[in-house]
Amino acid sequence: MKVPTAAILVIGDEILSGKVEDANARLLIGELRELGVALRRILVVPDEIADVAAAVRELSASFDHVFTSGGVGPTHDDVTISGIAAAFDKPVIRHSELERRLKTYFGDNADESKLRMADVPENAELLEMPDWRWPVLVCRNVYILPGVPELFRKKFLAMRERFRVEPFFTHAVFTLEEEFDIAEALREIADANPSVAIGSYPNFATPDYKVKVTLESKDGDALRTTLAALLVKLNDQKVVRVE
Amino acid sequence: MKVPTAAILVIGDEILSGKVEDANARLLIGELRELGVALRRILVVPDEIADVAAAVRELSASFDHVFTSGGVGPTHDDVTISGIAAAFDKPVIRHSELERRLKTYFGDNADESKLRMADVPENAELLEMPDWRWPVLVCRNVYILPGVPELFRKKFLAMRERFRVEPFFTHAVFTLEEEFDIAEALREIADANPSVAIGSYPNFATPDYKVKVTLESKDGDALRTTLAALLVKLNDQKVVRVE
Repeated sequence: MKVPTAAILVIGDEILSGKVEDANARLLIGELRELGVALRRILVVPDEIADVAAAVRELSASFDHVFTSGGVGPTHDDVTISGIAAAFDKPVIRHSELERRLKTYFGDNADESKLRMADVPENAELLEMPDWRWPVLVCRNVYILPGVPELFRKKFLAMRERFRVEPFFTHAVFTLEEEFDIAEALREIADANPSVAIGSYPNFATPDYKVKVTLESKDGDALRTTLAALLVKLNDQKVVRVE
Repeated sequence: MKVPTAAILVIGDEILSGKVEDANARLLIGELRELGVALRRILVVPDEIADVAAAVRELSASFDHVFTSGGVGPTHDDVTISGIAAAFDKPVIRHSELERRLKTYFGDNADESKLRMADVPENAELLEMPDWRWPVLVCRNVYILPGVPELFRKKFLAMRERFRVEPFFTHAVFTLEEEFDIAEALREIADANPSVAIGSYPNFATPDYKVKVTLESKDGDALRTTLAALLVKLNDQKVVRVE
C-alpha cells in the first residue's frame, strides 16, 4: 500500500526569530494526518532566495506533495516566488491572467507594487476554487500558500479533499513497565510487523503511566494482529489502558 | 560582526504524525534569540537513520551550532545515535566511562537494554555539568539532547550560557498604511541598510494596524539610523505605535 508523502516548507525570518509563532505547520500536521497523508518533513528557512531554492528542489524531488507557507507578499522580504523559480531553473514571469485580475480589482491604483503580485515562476499553474478571488499557485507538486494564518487555513481547507486517501488506523497502550524492560519485546514485534509503525514514548511528567506505546498502520488487520502480539508480550498487570 | 548561527533538528515520528506537539524547538527559538544566536533552520525528520544522517551532515557543515531533539532512548525507534554516527562516517562504540556509570547506577539490573545507553558515535565527547548524572553528548558541533521536554529544557538551560554573544536590538513600527503602499520605501531602506534586517507583516485579524514593520540588528547605531529613515518615509498620520 503506497502511502502518499508530504513536506511542509515554512519560509520566514519571523518564525526563526520568535517574532511570530508558527500556526501553519501545526495546522497541516493534523490535517495531513486526518487525510491519510504521511508527513515526512517540516523545514523552516529564512527569507533568502538560495535557501528557499535549495529546500524546494530537495523536497519536491523527495515527496509527493510540498506545501510552502509565507513569503508571497509585495515587500523585499517576500522571496518565495523567486526561490521556487530558481529551484526549477525557471524565470519569474508576469502572468497575464493574474495581471488582468489585479488591474480589474485595483483599477487606477494598480501600480507596479501591486502588479508584482502577478509575477510567478514560469511553470506555475493556477488552482482555482469557486469562492476564491485569487488562485493557489502550483509549481509541479509544490503548493504555494500565504503565511498569514487566516489565509493559509482558508486556502488549505478549501483544497484539502483532493489529497484524501485511506485513513491511518492507530492504537495506544499505556503501561507502568519501564521502557528499558519492554525495549526488547518492542524491537521483536516491530521487526515482525513491518507494516505497523511502533512508537515508544516515556512519560516522566505524571505517575499514571510510564510508557505510551503507539501502533499505526493503514492495514487494519495487521494493526489488530500486532496489538494482540504486543499485549501478549507486556505484563498485563502493568497495562493501564488500551486505546 | 559575525553572528553565530544555529539549527534545530527534531527527530520524531510523533511530531510529524501529530501525536505530540513540539515543545523543544519552540523553547530553543526563544532561548537562542535571547542568547544573540541566529537560528537559521528548523528541521523535523522521521525516526530513520538515513534521514537523520543526511540532515546532520548538512546542518553540521552549514551552521555553527546544531541541537538535536529526540531519538536517544533504548527502543527500536531511537535512531539518533546511529544517524549521527553515520553522518560523520564513524562507528557506534560502547563508551567505557558511560558503561561504568550505568553499571554503578543499575547494579545487577544492568542488562543489555540498559547498557545500550552507553553506545555513542566514536567522535562523541561528554559535556558534563555539576548537577547532571548523565552528560550531554557532543559530536563536533552537534549537541544531542533528549526529546522529553522536561529533560530537554533542563539540559539546555544548564548549558545555555556557553552560547551567549552580543544581543540583538529590535524595533517595531505599526502602521495603518497598506503593505502595497510602503513596499517600495521598505525596499529602498533595506537596500541602504544591509546590517539591519527589515521584516514586513500584514495584519488582517484586528483593525488596530495594517502592517507591522520590524527592524533588527546587532548594531545599535545602525538600528537607530534605520528607524529614523523609516519614520521619515512612512506617513506619520498613519503610524500607530513604535516599539
